[in-house]
Amino acid sequence: MRVLSNARILTMDADLREIGQGWIALEDDRIAALGEGTPPAGRVEDMGGDLIMPGMVNPHCHLPMTLFRGLGEDVDDRLFRYILPLERALVTADVVEAGTRLAAVESIRGGVTTVADMYYFEDRVGAVLDAAGLRGVIGQTLADFAAPDHASMDEGFARLDALVDIYRDHPRITASAAPHAPYSTGPEVLRRVAEWSAAHPGLPVQMHLAETREELKWAEAEHGCSTVEVTDRAGLLTPALVAAHVMYPSEADIALMAERGISVAHNARSNGKAGRGIAPVTALRAAGIAVGLATDGPMSGNTLDLFAQFAPASMFQKIAGGSRKPLPCTDVIRMATIEGAGTLGMGDRIGSLEPGKQADLIRISLADPRLHPVYDIYSTLVFAALPCDVRATMVAGSWLMEDRQVATLDAGKALADALQIARAFKARIIEIDKVSQ
Amino acid sequence: MRVLSNARILTMDADLREIGQGWIALEDDRIAALGEGTPPAGRVEDMGGDLIMPGMVNPHCHLPMTLFRGLGEDVDDRLFRYILPLERALVTADVVEAGTRLAAVESIRGGVTTVADMYYFEDRVGAVLDAAGLRGVIGQTLADFAAPDHASMDEGFARLDALVDIYRDHPRITASAAPHAPYSTGPEVLRRVAEWSAAHPGLPVQMHLAETREELKWAEAEHGCSTVEVTDRAGLLTPALVAAHVMYPSEADIALMAERGISVAHNARSNGKAGRGIAPVTALRAAGIAVGLATDGPMSGNTLDLFAQFAPASMFQKIAGGSRKPLPCTDVIRMATIEGAGTLGMGDRIGSLEPGKQADLIRISLADPRLHPVYDIYSTLVFAALPCDVRATMVAGSWLMEDRQVATLDAGKALADALQIARAFKARIIEIDKVSQ
Repeated sequence: MRVLSNARILTMDADLREIGQGWIALEDDRIAALGEGTPPAGRVEDMGGDLIMPGMVNPHCHLPMTLFRGLGEDVDDRLFRYILPLERALVTADVVEAGTRLAAVESIRGGVTTVADMYYFEDRVGAVLDAAGLRGVIGQTLADFAAPDHASMDEGFARLDALVDIYRDHPRITASAAPHAPYSTGPEVLRRVAEWSAAHPGLPVQMHLAETREELKWAEAEHGCSTVEVTDRAGLLTPALVAAHVMYPSEADIALMAERGISVAHNARSNGKAGRGIAPVTALRAAGIAVGLATDGPMSGNTLDLFAQFAPASMFQKIAGGSRKPLPCTDVIRMATIEGAGTLGMGDRIGSLEPGKQADLIRISLADPRLHPVYDIYSTLVFAALPCDVRATMVAGSWLMEDRQVATLDAGKALADALQIARAFKARIIEIDKVSQ
Repeated sequence: MRVLSNARILTMDADLREIGQGWIALEDDRIAALGEGTPPAGRVEDMGGDLIMPGMVNPHCHLPMTLFRGLGEDVDDRLFRYILPLERALVTADVVEAGTRLAAVESIRGGVTTVADMYYFEDRVGAVLDAAGLRGVIGQTLADFAAPDHASMDEGFARLDALVDIYRDHPRITASAAPHAPYSTGPEVLRRVAEWSAAHPGLPVQMHLAETREELKWAEAEHGCSTVEVTDRAGLLTPALVAAHVMYPSEADIALMAERGISVAHNARSNGKAGRGIAPVTALRAAGIAVGLATDGPMSGNTLDLFAQFAPASMFQKIAGGSRKPLPCTDVIRMATIEGAGTLGMGDRIGSLEPGKQADLIRISLADPRLHPVYDIYSTLVFAALPCDVRATMVAGSWLMEDRQVATLDAGKALADALQIARAFKARIIEIDKVSQ
């Protein structure tokens, strides 16, 4: 038995139990026990008094889009001006793999242990996450507009089925269907995904939902109801669904989503940067909907660590509520761990440090003067800690990083490969900007 | 002559000149020249291809309040419940000195080279900033409520005059008057400060202004006008004034402030955490008012680096404007450097890298994979860079930090001393919480 000793432990269990001076015993990929005081006998690893908390869960991202990070910043029409043309012209399976590798390095270094991705060539995303040792939900995007990896919806579903086959019974990688959004796929595709979902219990469905005001107008004009209702009529509002953004639900929409048991991935920085306003996170959670903190793609939120989401998520709710009270620090960390795990249907396996759960955890150094004093460890994490404070990252009992050195991937090569691809992107951007001038 | 070579340079001059492969020649405390290509002869320091940009300017903070960081988080009535009782009971000159020392370590490590402080026992704040090598504006707070360092307004002004005497002709430390706010001091004190200011050209005045809705109500009820007008009638709206927060000015207030030439210190995180809404930064700047990014005290904003303000400041304006365009990345970095310098009347000496200016600059490593690709260096700085990327910090030609090691202060001792004081604070908090239960 391995024992992590001399640790300050944040369990994120139902009682938010904290252990000032504790230990965690590991058996293979699981937590066997944890406690205070003298550790049990075993192969001891001294945590040097550092903080141990559950690995963080990022329930909505587009990992390969690291390659687009910071591109078209502050530009309103960047989707049609840059993203779609670049994706059509340049996004291949190899590009996806390179982008995901850089994203995996960043996730591990930022203390994220589980990512739910939706993009293209997800078999390659899965292969990288597997090699990196991360836990992942890999979502085959299904889109009616020309996608880099499928020319028709039939082809998209064929890729999805292949994905299911490849990762059947994988201990860490889970296949998932990811229809792009109600307005971009339409009710027919949503219905087809709902059928697929019913036939594949345990596999999450990911979709952008109620993300833009244009989407609301589309639903009203085309279907005479809300975009949430369009999704419900197609049978897709089920506990399998993780809806990303959910910026503009009506009260009735919120009640309906709660009744159906769907979950939400909240992308504070992405929403804020797009000027879309403030998502009703407080109301969603008050209705009993699980809401996880997510990064969105690195072109939208620019980072893949959740520390960058903490302060914005909390401040947005405080601004909307006109008080310091909404979304207190404990809730922010809950959303980044156990509640985020719940959005992916994994709350019984990850998201808190409890006996029997997977050993997905991170070690955070509290050495930096910027973190002190610590009156409330949750406040320290939310408003002062940074990804560079994460010293080590473990998934399923294996260290993916120790002393800030990623063990499972060659970080230097990942960066060099990504930069080479970025050069081709830059050349294309220059052409685009020339044409549109 | 010293030469910093092999640097990527962001000058933040009027043309936002960037140099891909450049050098900066230093003569004593000043920049003698800078350019591209082969550096001139001299004592060369190789910057290893890192980014060099102007040191950042923090035009509103309460440095000694590092000791309160994270205290009373998410609690609405924390000012009267915690802060004022703790300040009255426990804030001495020694406590101020210890808190400032921790703050100086954090500022230097976060790439801030100039701080404008307002608190108590500012002679001690000045002494620490001087020893740390930082550039500072030290503001004697003038408050009608019982302050830790003066029992009457006469005593407060006597302290202010003493401060002026101590730091007269100091190359880096500037004395300043800091009336707390219009509602807490009243027009009589504002008038007295205005007289003092007229007699002390070149010394800034710092004040909280239009920070809360209660302040607007006070002004309307007591004076039948806005709090900005109360300040103007007292003669205090002058170019010497750096007004902090300015959350709720009317259109007429904005026009008046612009006409009078005052400046604003914007505290995005502090405002957001307090649930106060979004300050009209876009409108203030459109009116021609210089707006600097500031941290506020570490109890309100939790950090003393400006990186933590970048994304919130930009996102808030984008949300208020309903678009990606407001407050683009170049403007954010401008506000953190040259525009911030302007708020303190120092735009001719610091804030950009130009010949003849003070050598206040920072070296930023772009080594972390999380920062790449770099399509736009301003986007990288605003939405991906972190204080831990700052490798070295120089003020007036002297390195205050190299390779993340603070050279001018004992960071370990600063932290240990602060933690000892925090223990006394914690004991008092426990008593307060007991009594109020």
